[in-house]
Amino acid sequence: MKKKNQIISLILLLVAGLCTAQTSSEVVEDFKPSTLNQPQKEYPQVNSQGYARFKIEAPEAQSVVVSLGLGGTKGGTPLTKVEDGTWMGTTAGPMDEGFHYYHVTIDGGVFNDPGALNYYGSVRWESGIEIPAHDQDFYALKDVPHGKVQQILFPSPSTKTSRRAFVYTPPGYDKNQSERYPVLYLQHGWGEDETAWSNQGHANLIMDNLIAEGKIKPFIIVMTYGMTNEVKFGGLRNFDITPFQTVLVDELIPYVDSNFRTLDDQAHRAMAGLSMGGMETKTITLNKPEVFSHYALLSGGVYAPEDLKDHSNLKLVFISCGSKERPDGVKNAVVALKDAGYNAVSYVSEGTAHEFQTWRRSLHELAPLLFKK
Amino acid sequence: MKKKNQIISLILLLVAGLCTAQTSSEVVEDFKPSTLNQPQKEYPQVNSQGYARFKIEAPEAQSVVVSLGLGGTKGGTPLTKVEDGTWMGTTAGPMDEGFHYYHVTIDGGVFNDPGALNYYGSVRWESGIEIPAHDQDFYALKDVPHGKVQQILFPSPSTKTSRRAFVYTPPGYDKNQSERYPVLYLQHGWGEDETAWSNQGHANLIMDNLIAEGKIKPFIIVMTYGMTNEVKFGGLRNFDITPFQTVLVDELIPYVDSNFRTLDDQAHRAMAGLSMGGMETKTITLNKPEVFSHYALLSGGVYAPEDLKDHSNLKLVFISCGSKERPDGVKNAVVALKDAGYNAVSYVSEGTAHEFQTWRRSLHELAPLLFKK
Repeated sequence: MKKKNQIISLILLLVAGLCTAQTSSEVVEDFKPSTLNQPQKEYPQVNSQGYARFKIEAPEAQSVVVSLGLGGTKGGTPLTKVEDGTWMGTTAGPMDEGFHYYHVTIDGGVFNDPGALNYYGSVRWESGIEIPAHDQDFYALKDVPHGKVQQILFPSPSTKTSRRAFVYTPPGYDKNQSERYPVLYLQHGWGEDETAWSNQGHANLIMDNLIAEGKIKPFIIVMTYGMTNEVKFGGLRNFDITPFQTVLVDELIPYVDSNFRTLDDQAHRAMAGLSMGGMETKTITLNKPEVFSHYALLSGGVYAPEDLKDHSNLKLVFISCGSKERPDGVKNAVVALKDAGYNAVSYVSEGTAHEFQTWRRSLHELAPLLFKK
Repeated sequence: MKKKNQIISLILLLVAGLCTAQTSSEVVEDFKPSTLNQPQKEYPQVNSQGYARFKIEAPEAQSVVVSLGLGGTKGGTPLTKVEDGTWMGTTAGPMDEGFHYYHVTIDGGVFNDPGALNYYGSVRWESGIEIPAHDQDFYALKDVPHGKVQQILFPSPSTKTSRRAFVYTPPGYDKNQSERYPVLYLQHGWGEDETAWSNQGHANLIMDNLIAEGKIKPFIIVMTYGMTNEVKFGGLRNFDITPFQTVLVDELIPYVDSNFRTLDDQAHRAMAGLSMGGMETKTITLNKPEVFSHYALLSGGVYAPEDLKDHSNLKLVFISCGSKERPDGVKNAVVALKDAGYNAVSYVSEGTAHEFQTWRRSLHELAPLLFKK
């Protein structure tokens, strides 16, 4: 028995040695603070391979687990206590490029990382981390003319309150007083709100950069809160579109058309949404073909040709998702739409899943296709 | 000895009984979720007397302390573990009316309350709680015409980046294309940023309501980040105003004047700031008398008459603070300014300290005095 134990020990040592060797040769020690950290915060950090490293101060905690992780670490990345009373840990592998939500579980309670900025997702303000993407240039803050993101409070008789929306107006909007602009209504996903497309999505920077490069004709983007039903976990099945459709079509659109210099006809109005916002886009565009002429679903389902048979003034259908979602479903749906004679375009974001990098790229692909005719 | 111990025990029991009786007769059990809670979150709560009650889930934590508190609980309000694995506690007394920052220390680490929205203060995003104020109507969201809060990104050659500011434009700004407006440059305090006056201060709602009541002539408010020096704790003594003064006077003001319909002369430009923003206001207005005509310091120091002797086009000096700060200093300074012939006004916010309720009220008092001549 003793010999057998010795052999097992030897094997374990060899395996441990291999694992260590593998890890140390794999993880490049060039970690830098995430670009989404709060001012002056050193952690979380990201390396050139996309590994994320966390450091949380909680000297007397029993356990600290970060929800972000992959591969071998189901349930996130457990942190280990280091000598100075802080907890540290690195994801078991590289994360997908782009933005990720996460939180920290301290002794069984869910909190945010004090080092990171917060972003509204999962019906709470979550910590955010940015894994630098190879194509991050298209949403970078550059020295180009910048549009404005405006908060408006529009009257909503149907919900008996003033509701908030953010409106992106392109550079030059205030100076070109004779010019009128088309409008894209752009919806967030489940658990997010009207801040998501600017904060996580950089929709304004994507537009500023595309306009500066001369790749699109400027248009306005309007982003409002789409969860008028206060949907809770699992409640999507019972989702009733009517309250939000009323807010969007009967309240917000007339407000925007009377307070901004819009081209206020169906030909110059688009609707797009990500995830649950795609579901809303599909339902509302099918209910209201007289309101929108350009439809876009970002990781949010597909249209079948028969859905669109009465949509004679439809100008564009755009359907996208990440390559780690169901790209074949998106591609096949667009092939069917094209075969039926529709102007349909598919886009698959390489190497990304149901997350914001997919949707940033989707907006970047969609914008040049809008309002071309 | 035994008898003496018995007597002491009896006294202790009596004291304990008195304390308990006092507490239970004092704290009214009408707690409601704070209006600044994240959607669907029940805690933190506030009662009609201004007590705050916290509930934090952290089943295996050793200690949970909320930084908000007063009176007997130095260092905040310690929470007690209750049967279901959560921690609860109530402040030892009523809190001042209005907005308060706080955080939660879990096992020695500083986190935010997952129930509350976050606000940027103390150079971090902190939890926020709102103690309903008797005068909260003046910053309530009402069914009146609303202005817009716009995010702008303006070029800043001196700091080699695009910098962010928020611009409040009053209701009707977009429709009254021939009208030009005066501008108030309004600064946040130490550790805060350009989001503070809208998020914590409700500057936009204060303006919307004053305009709806016909109490002020509409003007524009511009709010930008004033901590260009990356001031750290204790660093205010070495604060150099030059970088921020350059950003404000040489970069932001020209940008605002060329991108908004402003009255772009000294007579129609005001500067105000709270706390450190008051210090900045004082320094910059004294350095640049040709740029501003209305000066306001909110819990941010005072002017002496001799400071202003070369300010021939000065129209108004406004100085305020909370009654729990140094109200006599503010009142005496204004008496001296008046005696010297200046149009000076003091304001003391009753029952508040160095906190946002003081500054909301100060803006509400200041706004009707601006740009009257």
